[in-house]
Amino acid sequence: MGFYQRLETAWTLSESMLCVGLDPDPSRFPDSLRGGVRDIESFCKQIIDTTGDLVCAFKPQIAYFAACGAESQLEKVCEYILNNFPNVVLILDAKRGDIGDTAALYAREAFERYGADAVTVNPYLGTDSLAPFLKTPGRGTIVLCRTSNAGAGEFQSLEVDGEPLYLRVARTAATTWRKQGDCALVVGATYPEELARVRAIVGDMPILVPGIGAQGGDIRAVVSAGRDANRRGLIINSSRAVLYADHSPSFAAAARRVALATRDAINAVE
Amino acid sequence: MGFYQRLETAWTLSESMLCVGLDPDPSRFPDSLRGGVRDIESFCKQIIDTTGDLVCAFKPQIAYFAACGAESQLEKVCEYILNNFPNVVLILDAKRGDIGDTAALYAREAFERYGADAVTVNPYLGTDSLAPFLKTPGRGTIVLCRTSNAGAGEFQSLEVDGEPLYLRVARTAATTWRKQGDCALVVGATYPEELARVRAIVGDMPILVPGIGAQGGDIRAVVSAGRDANRRGLIINSSRAVLYADHSPSFAAAARRVALATRDAINAVE
Repeated sequence: MGFYQRLETAWTLSESMLCVGLDPDPSRFPDSLRGGVRDIESFCKQIIDTTGDLVCAFKPQIAYFAACGAESQLEKVCEYILNNFPNVVLILDAKRGDIGDTAALYAREAFERYGADAVTVNPYLGTDSLAPFLKTPGRGTIVLCRTSNAGAGEFQSLEVDGEPLYLRVARTAATTWRKQGDCALVVGATYPEELARVRAIVGDMPILVPGIGAQGGDIRAVVSAGRDANRRGLIINSSRAVLYADHSPSFAAAARRVALATRDAINAVE
Repeated sequence: MGFYQRLETAWTLSESMLCVGLDPDPSRFPDSLRGGVRDIESFCKQIIDTTGDLVCAFKPQIAYFAACGAESQLEKVCEYILNNFPNVVLILDAKRGDIGDTAALYAREAFERYGADAVTVNPYLGTDSLAPFLKTPGRGTIVLCRTSNAGAGEFQSLEVDGEPLYLRVARTAATTWRKQGDCALVVGATYPEELARVRAIVGDMPILVPGIGAQGGDIRAVVSAGRDANRRGLIINSSRAVLYADHSPSFAAAARRVALATRDAINAVE
């Protein structure tokens, strides 16, 4: 089963376009988890257990693990998702970008080592740099298009041939990359107008949307601008607002409440 | 001592602009190293020992370690360079690119965990995404400008405001980024004309040049096009041509011969 098909199944079974981002920051862990870095795996598993029926995807952010040497905990977190929530899509947020043999090794890191269904990648190095990801059978390649940061437009919105660069990326995705594999895009929730322009170009291609919650993106605007003709097509990520909803020992229950409210808010958009 | 100053010292003491890239591929190790992945550290240390007096920099490519879960070996390789070749610059080739807290964690991965003097990063997400790297005191931020792959031009050469995107990146580096920290650029050896255009914009900013050796870039063309007014300014990387010069037990001696010939060829350019 390919990434597109797995995602369709996840949307249907969960009745949710919510993705919970796993950004484990030991300095923000609840008082009940005093092990710091050693508790990353435990923290993530508790979040996964209490939100797994509310999401279409989990998205571990590899930098949180790599900064403190916790790759083996990331392996275990990914394995836990794959084993216990087989109908939830596993997206490794790594934003990799390299060429030739090196790109192939990054694809191996994401798809073989961590078993991810999909990985985020950077388009700056061009189509040939994305090929090792796109050509991995059954897996998804989620290309940065318009990111959610304040300075995203500095290069992404530069005009090339009469349109901004991020739309050129979207157009290349909709034509070239889609033919090579199950391609998706990243468009930040903080730019709903840009999201609508991307959707108009890419048809029903899935779009991963970070930036709601802590980053301030508006759910109604995102869903209205971003969903496809079937009222689907979005993977709407929330990380910190879910993970750090509460610092008490019942943090996981609090995370569930926020995830549930977010899913319902997404589904309530007319 | 900052990155620029450390690099100046390295150029002076080694009389070399050669950088040896550490891309350890167990499938290409000599017959004497049969441990596969377990021998990555040993392989790298032998290359480091026999080439350390011939180079201004070593550049471990993190994907080779990450694909097979060898981060602890990368830690040891980096520590070995820092301890035994304190006048050689350590560049972590990671091509990271993310925003906010996540970018700060990637900076921590490169500069704290691995102790790198500099790290390669991707500019697509804009100036704010580079800030955590640029603002780390004493360290260098090496931004992808024009990469060495065949398809590099697909986005990098798109015309924006009358010049190709990679020159806009170079111009931003020479103005904004340089004020924020010790910034350098990546320009592939396979595009000497583009290298000359970048040099004309960035003055004496260091440029990391991958793509000689196995990728076919021409040393004379690179040095002529890329060096600065002081006949310096380049970090010219060779990986596979050095590492896999020979598959016999004397592979490290063969690596030294290739490194020496490459350094001399660089220095011989009029």
